Amino acid sequence: MQLNCDLGESYGSWTMGLDSQVMPYIDQANIACGFHAGDPDVMQRTLQLAKQHGVAIGAHPAYPDLTGFGRRSMQCSHNEIINLLHYQIAALDGMAQCQGLSLSYVKPHGALYNDMMSKPAVWQAVLQAMASYHKPLKLMLLADSNSHNHQQQAATLGVALLFEAFADRRYTDEGKLTARSESGAVLHGHDVLAQVSQLLNDGSVTTASGQRLALRADTLCVHGDNPGAVAQVVQIRQLLSSNAV
Amino acid sequence: MQLNCDLGESYGSWTMGLDSQVMPYIDQANIACGFHAGDPDVMQRTLQLAKQHGVAIGAHPAYPDLTGFGRRSMQCSHNEIINLLHYQIAALDGMAQCQGLSLSYVKPHGALYNDMMSKPAVWQAVLQAMASYHKPLKLMLLADSNSHNHQQQAATLGVALLFEAFADRRYTDEGKLTARSESGAVLHGHDVLAQVSQLLNDGSVTTASGQRLALRADTLCVHGDNPGAVAQVVQIRQLLSSNAV
Amino acid sequence: MQLNCDLGESYGSWTMGLDSQVMPYIDQANIACGFHAGDPDVMQRTLQLAKQHGVAIGAHPAYPDLTGFGRRSMQCSHNEIINLLHYQIAALDGMAQCQGLSLSYVKPHGALYNDMMSKPAVWQAVLQAMASYHKPLKLMLLADSNSHNHQQQAATLGVALLFEAFADRRYTDEGKLTARSESGAVLHGHDVLAQVSQLLNDGSVTTASGQRLALRADTLCVHGDNPGAVAQVVQIRQLLSSNAV
Amino acid sequence: MQLNCDLGESYGSWTMGLDSQVMPYIDQANIACGFHAGDPDVMQRTLQLAKQHGVAIGAHPAYPDLTGFGRRSMQCSHNEIINLLHYQIAALDGMAQCQGLSLSYVKPHGALYNDMMSKPAVWQAVLQAMASYHKPLKLMLLADSNSHNHQQQAATLGVALLFEAFADRRYTDEGKLTARSESGAVLHGHDVLAQVSQLLNDGSVTTASGQRLALRADTLCVHGDNPGAVAQVVQIRQLLSSNAV
Repeated sequence: MQLNCDLGESYGSWTMGLDSQVMPYIDQANIACGFHAGDPDVMQRTLQLAKQHGVAIGAHPAYPDLTGFGRRSMQCSHNEIINLLHYQIAALDGMAQCQGLSLSYVKPHGALYNDMMSKPAVWQAVLQAMASYHKPLKLMLLADSNSHNHQQQAATLGVALLFEAFADRRYTDEGKLTARSESGAVLHGHDVLAQVSQLLNDGSVTTASGQRLALRADTLCVHGDNPGAVAQVVQIRQLLSSNAV
Repeated sequence: MQLNCDLGESYGSWTMGLDSQVMPYIDQANIACGFHAGDPDVMQRTLQLAKQHGVAIGAHPAYPDLTGFGRRSMQCSHNEIINLLHYQIAALDGMAQCQGLSLSYVKPHGALYNDMMSKPAVWQAVLQAMASYHKPLKLMLLADSNSHNHQQQAATLGVALLFEAFADRRYTDEGKLTARSESGAVLHGHDVLAQVSQLLNDGSVTTASGQRLALRADTLCVHGDNPGAVAQVVQIRQLLSSNAV
Repeated sequence: MQLNCDLGESYGSWTMGLDSQVMPYIDQANIACGFHAGDPDVMQRTLQLAKQHGVAIGAHPAYPDLTGFGRRSMQCSHNEIINLLHYQIAALDGMAQCQGLSLSYVKPHGALYNDMMSKPAVWQAVLQAMASYHKPLKLMLLADSNSHNHQQQAATLGVALLFEAFADRRYTDEGKLTARSESGAVLHGHDVLAQVSQLLNDGSVTTASGQRLALRADTLCVHGDNPGAVAQVVQIRQLLSSNAV
Repeated sequence: MQLNCDLGESYGSWTMGLDSQVMPYIDQANIACGFHAGDPDVMQRTLQLAKQHGVAIGAHPAYPDLTGFGRRSMQCSHNEIINLLHYQIAALDGMAQCQGLSLSYVKPHGALYNDMMSKPAVWQAVLQAMASYHKPLKLMLLADSNSHNHQQQAATLGVALLFEAFADRRYTDEGKLTARSESGAVLHGHDVLAQVSQLLNDGSVTTASGQRLALRADTLCVHGDNPGAVAQVVQIRQLLSSNAV
């Protein structure tokens, strides 16, 4: 089980995230590519930091919406999605190679991620973008009750997938994330570690209604925006390490 | 002697340049990378067009200034220039590879090009960006009386250069382009062809004051913005072809 | 019956529309405010042109999407819509006053216009933005079978409306525009003039299925993007003038 | 003597400055207008905060450079400067009026401010922009040894000026700010309060070389980026209050 985290989301004079504090504890850095966050200077520094800690690099492309931080759905066409993905992935890919690093996966950001999970047309466009990129990169997406279909569709196009689970989010019986607006949607403290343990040892989570939901996850999404989040990542890392023994 | 032309300078719903008309007659397409022109869709279409006509591809990166079309000098730092070049070059490079194409050179655009020719700090930053890119790409710059120094400095860093001359611009005795604001700065009709002939056969141009100025050019910069410009490119292509025989 | 036209949609070095050719024939200029088109220089020139021809000025605000020309729906919140409208309207309003002109109405652009007509939440946000702007401006929207409701809701908030009809678009029986993707959606030549005549003389259009649809329009939307469109505007202007006698 | 502070420099999801903490202690809020910082939502919130504390409002316009936070000089033409100033001032002006507030002055930001103080062409363009704005607004600029000339030139165009001094910056004998790169350029703790006292009681500062430099300042520029800066503003406010008695 790997730990992945969104990083490189500063922009110009604005800082976001405690990148240097969380980088030592994660396995996979999802790096913003300039469309929702991350200018070329931020990207260069984030790549350097990932290199220093031997963390795998993923592109974290988004809709072109700096003001909205890529969190507003935009009605882009099939070709627009493919091209904006290729552009952003390629920009990070080349900058990584300038530092002797190799890009290994892609995780769409924000509204593009949500649209990929909920709108078949966007999912198809993302898959096509991955399949037509000039080198094989894995696509990271949400592990949910639809994972088997995703797996099959991706395999048809020769795209490898990485399924992620959320350490700190409560799941519905349908295998979706409970909306943040609902109470109990975000887990804290011991509940987070309990969910991680269950994912590790039983390949499942306990849903909001108390059901056992099988969930095959390759990686856990963690956060590094504030000191509390970083402290939680450290605890999850320790749990993973002790479990590995 | 090659012909190079700035292309892919449309943006979103705005069209600029007669790309499909001029592409058949040139050897090298300088393709905008999104910072002064050229969104991902425009870049994809321009790459396709270049592929169709077997034209070599160069990145045409600029200062981040869509409103000013990259024509306004911006006081960027050494590292900012390197990173904005890497970002733009990488984006086009990767998109080209998605179409089975290979990027071969870089020609900075507008104010970045002028600053590179006139400000040593910018020249150094551009050279460093080329030297630290992860694959060897040639740098296209203006052939002038300082070409020998440029050649030596680039060689030190292992960067290969492509010198370009302008078919339709009058030169000063110092080997600079006469400012567009001066009368006679832009050549027309027969004068253009005469200058091309002299460059081909004598490796020189006749300056505004009537002097012979030796100029070693690998490539000629031509334009495709309007029907007259395209017609001129066709004539220059015919001249080159007949000369080659 | 007035004629309104989208103008000032150039941007930086990119030109769009034959503004100076169409301005003499229209009554109301919908001027882009920088978010989908129209930088400050373009806005200033467009205002000057409107002044020269005594044309009324409307703000033509859009979602923040230069690359997509404001044609892609974006999931903006209620407050985001109000603030992006206030910002754009205010920018044009102040620039108009610098030329001694007075802004008189607002016509949302592209996807924001479509969302206003089809999504109640967007319609409410636009109405609120109009009601909370610091001076009374009319809101231009599509005349359709829902106009009576629009009128009532706007009146509650003290917002005056301007209903527009399209000279060159076929209507459905429900009073919507036939989708451009369907054949016959766009009218040409004599059919355009016939529809204008019917609107003028009978306050109705003939729908795609041949029904008579009552349509109360204060203004007709015309286009100035190409010579054919401008020629059509001249004909419509002549028709209006002869009708007025 | 007033206290002015740059505020509203957050953008989208990025926060900058402790606006709500510093607002109660200042007299004049220089509010970013969207070109270097401050999207429409941030502007709206900042105006609300200023209203709540009865603080005067100034526009803080900049070169169009979000990535560089308006700190990179851009070679804009005379008309470009006028239009980008009018656009930004008008946007804030109108949004302020929507809250029943009235804009009272303009303070250019970053590189535009520096260029205005050091490049006569930029100074002329800024003055022209102020003179041609549709209502009288004061222009805030640096009090230096050239203030008398600035005063005269502004008076010719009917533009009123507000001269500002820096509480925490050491001055050169020529009345310029010592470059931040030099040691001692930024004052701390007691030295700040001493400089404020001297400005208040003697209308002068002591320069880096120990000379007395007369400086007529209407307002002091203070900062609110971090808790230390806010604490300093509180102390300066106390000093001004006790002095006023």
